[in-house]
Amino acid sequence: MAIGVKALPFTFVAHGLGLAGAVMVLVWCIYYLGGLAFESTNKNLIFNIHPVLMLIGLVIIGGQAIMSYKSLTLRKEVKKLIHLVLHAIAIILGIIGIYAVFKNHNESGIANLYSLHSWIGITLISLYGIQWIYGFVVFFFPGGSATVRSESLPWHVLFGLFVYVLVVGNAALGFLEKLTFLENSGLAKFSSEAILVNFTAIVAILYGVFVFLTAISQSSQPEDDFSYSSI
Amino acid sequence: MAIGVKALPFTFVAHGLGLAGAVMVLVWCIYYLGGLAFESTNKNLIFNIHPVLMLIGLVIIGGQAIMSYKSLTLRKEVKKLIHLVLHAIAIILGIIGIYAVFKNHNESGIANLYSLHSWIGITLISLYGIQWIYGFVVFFFPGGSATVRSESLPWHVLFGLFVYVLVVGNAALGFLEKLTFLENSGLAKFSSEAILVNFTAIVAILYGVFVFLTAISQSSQPEDDFSYSSI
Repeated sequence: MAIGVKALPFTFVAHGLGLAGAVMVLVWCIYYLGGLAFESTNKNLIFNIHPVLMLIGLVIIGGQAIMSYKSLTLRKEVKKLIHLVLHAIAIILGIIGIYAVFKNHNESGIANLYSLHSWIGITLISLYGIQWIYGFVVFFFPGGSATVRSESLPWHVLFGLFVYVLVVGNAALGFLEKLTFLENSGLAKFSSEAILVNFTAIVAILYGVFVFLTAISQSSQPEDDFSYSSI
Repeated sequence: MAIGVKALPFTFVAHGLGLAGAVMVLVWCIYYLGGLAFESTNKNLIFNIHPVLMLIGLVIIGGQAIMSYKSLTLRKEVKKLIHLVLHAIAIILGIIGIYAVFKNHNESGIANLYSLHSWIGITLISLYGIQWIYGFVVFFFPGGSATVRSESLPWHVLFGLFVYVLVVGNAALGFLEKLTFLENSGLAKFSSEAILVNFTAIVAILYGVFVFLTAISQSSQPEDDFSYSSI
């Protein structure tokens, strides 16, 4: 479903937004929320690992994995390897990030899996994992037949983008949920921290938009276009 | 960007989900939250108009407007009229729904426009309105030249779907925000009301997914496919 514009300029905007988002979530969690720790008597520091790893992992590195096919000018096999390694890093960081929030809940006596954000999140990390395994088996090793590969590729792209859009949306849900907790505990609604969190979410959404635009635009290597964007 | 499957079966699923979502948001706002009113000493009843009109208006009727091009087998002019009238109804209900939440805030002494949901919402109702006006002027009356129409149609579809995806995502943000307020005020995290609200959001997201799938699938009238789905 390639639109008639080049992908490369979109990737530049996405890289800038991704860098900004990573810095913003680190400033929030380290400067405003007190830092990150896996073991601490201050259980909030365990929670703080969650937004950092989910945004940098699933959203930013996951987005880089998607864009790498369109932005890099390398042999297809090399791009495929980069694509699956980046997605693997995204999933591993995502799993550690989800583990951190369970650890925080369990050590603080907070119920698990009651919120919309958590329900969607558990669903998405599962779908992301299934998509990765399918991609690995069919497109990498041992690899499906040429027919299976060419017929399932458009659905791999469509399903992958579908999961990614929901990942970005669920990140926005997470930022809003945590900020609402903080505001209910006394944080001023127009404080610098509240504004920072809202803008971090907006930067994440814009990053997702530019990843999506990259994915539906034309590769720098025209011969790749059919194989990648035939949805 | 039509995928190689028929749109019609997707629209049936979407209609079922849309009906379910409308019933669920009405049950929540009338049975659990006490009903709807524009004038009341109980200011919560003014707020309750907001989720009902946003979900039924922008999400459900807006989705029907998008799908009408693919699901109906009528003359193109008739479908165009249905498309723009449904979107106009969606926008009008959306504006009344946003007015209700400002009225609730003003009469209850709550700050306006501090949350991520409100920022994204104000942006989206503006973009939705701009998109409608552009569509009306270029495709309906007085109508652009054939070149302008054919060149801008793919962007109209892409931008429209982009706004619609964000509308559905922002509805999820709204459900999560309101439920978090209620839970902070004592509502049990696994109460029937909390489960209902989360599932209403999930039904809304699934409705959006099926609207999107309808939009990128093949019309029942093959001759329309190029004109509608050439992104």
